[in-house]
Amino acid sequence: METARPHPYYPQNLVLDHYVPNTNSMMDTLIMMFAVFGVIIAVSLFLAYKKRNTSIRGVGNQVTFVWFVMCGFIHLGLEGYFGVYHKTLAGMNTPLAQVWKEYSISDSRYLTSDSFVLIMERITAFAWGPLAFYTAYAQYHDLPSRYIVQLILSLGQLYGDVLYYFTTLVEGSPHCDPHPYYYYFYFVHFNAWWIIIPCILMHNSIKNLYRAVRITMEGAAKDQKQKKHK
Amino acid sequence: METARPHPYYPQNLVLDHYVPNTNSMMDTLIMMFAVFGVIIAVSLFLAYKKRNTSIRGVGNQVTFVWFVMCGFIHLGLEGYFGVYHKTLAGMNTPLAQVWKEYSISDSRYLTSDSFVLIMERITAFAWGPLAFYTAYAQYHDLPSRYIVQLILSLGQLYGDVLYYFTTLVEGSPHCDPHPYYYYFYFVHFNAWWIIIPCILMHNSIKNLYRAVRITMEGAAKDQKQKKHK
Repeated sequence: METARPHPYYPQNLVLDHYVPNTNSMMDTLIMMFAVFGVIIAVSLFLAYKKRNTSIRGVGNQVTFVWFVMCGFIHLGLEGYFGVYHKTLAGMNTPLAQVWKEYSISDSRYLTSDSFVLIMERITAFAWGPLAFYTAYAQYHDLPSRYIVQLILSLGQLYGDVLYYFTTLVEGSPHCDPHPYYYYFYFVHFNAWWIIIPCILMHNSIKNLYRAVRITMEGAAKDQKQKKHK
Repeated sequence: METARPHPYYPQNLVLDHYVPNTNSMMDTLIMMFAVFGVIIAVSLFLAYKKRNTSIRGVGNQVTFVWFVMCGFIHLGLEGYFGVYHKTLAGMNTPLAQVWKEYSISDSRYLTSDSFVLIMERITAFAWGPLAFYTAYAQYHDLPSRYIVQLILSLGQLYGDVLYYFTTLVEGSPHCDPHPYYYYFYFVHFNAWWIIIPCILMHNSIKNLYRAVRITMEGAAKDQKQKKHK
């Protein structure tokens, strides 16, 4: 016995009794989201520009600063919203709920309070979110902690995202709409950013920390030698 | 309609058709496991003792070295075994399968190839396992990478373990036998090690890396000043 499918999510036999359709079109939701992203990018680029001759020199550092600020807002704002309202999300039509209901076509685990997605997203929101803002702050003020927090943040994001991909891939992605737009643009592409950029930033952190430790060890060895000679 | 429970796992209605009971008693399995742990601890303590005047000075450093070696063996050996044989584990009676079937009374997700536990354990086995051995090696030879890899390893272990606990706690621990022996000694106690020790080692890494970066930054600032005076 098959009943008419009352929602657009996968697997198609998923029961989502509280679901109500979005009132905004997909295009409206995407435009709203990218407009907010645009404002965040513009403001953080302006901040980065003020430090172009000191702590945020060069294009690479400017992009990195924008990345940390964006991560802070996305983790705390968007993912924090999910972490708090996950239970009732499918029945809500606030702008952020509509973003999640649109994204969930590519991964319905966001509407079913899947235990892994829920805990991973809460840690991302409430641990990595504030840490992303602190990392931007540490970069802005050239603090000694900068590369340490950058390493912690990036490893946390990378590990969470690898788990996120593989926990559904290993089951054959039953939670994902197989349509290429949803599968590749939403599920694969949006999350790929948190694989690629953390890898680059971890490499950058490790290189800088390694150099600092090596210099300090060489300095200590030299001091030791000089002491012996006296 | 209720059928007789054919296995000791939770939730009690769990279907595990391929399950066969352990042939060794619980005591035999525990004694075997702790005997192997004892040999690993003895050998790594002997190695640490050889470096007691150089790279592994003091009790704290010796315990830390033993910890890394133990983690390497537990991650690669025990958890790697699960990562490879998870599908057929419930029906096997090799010594390692019997360890997992005993532990699974406190968390049946190990016998059902739960997607989160499977992916987290594979990353723990095949990424954190070799990294734990490398961290022991870096400590033994006092390499500049020591505190960097210690930080990566410990954060990886901590994040995995926090997710591990909360993904079942958030559902009300349906996979755990509520008997205090299984719940507190197996599920809570065995995994608590990978919360407490990584926190201590992360703090230790951050302190040492922060110090190295500060010294290097101060040195660079001094060089800059001297250049200006010339």
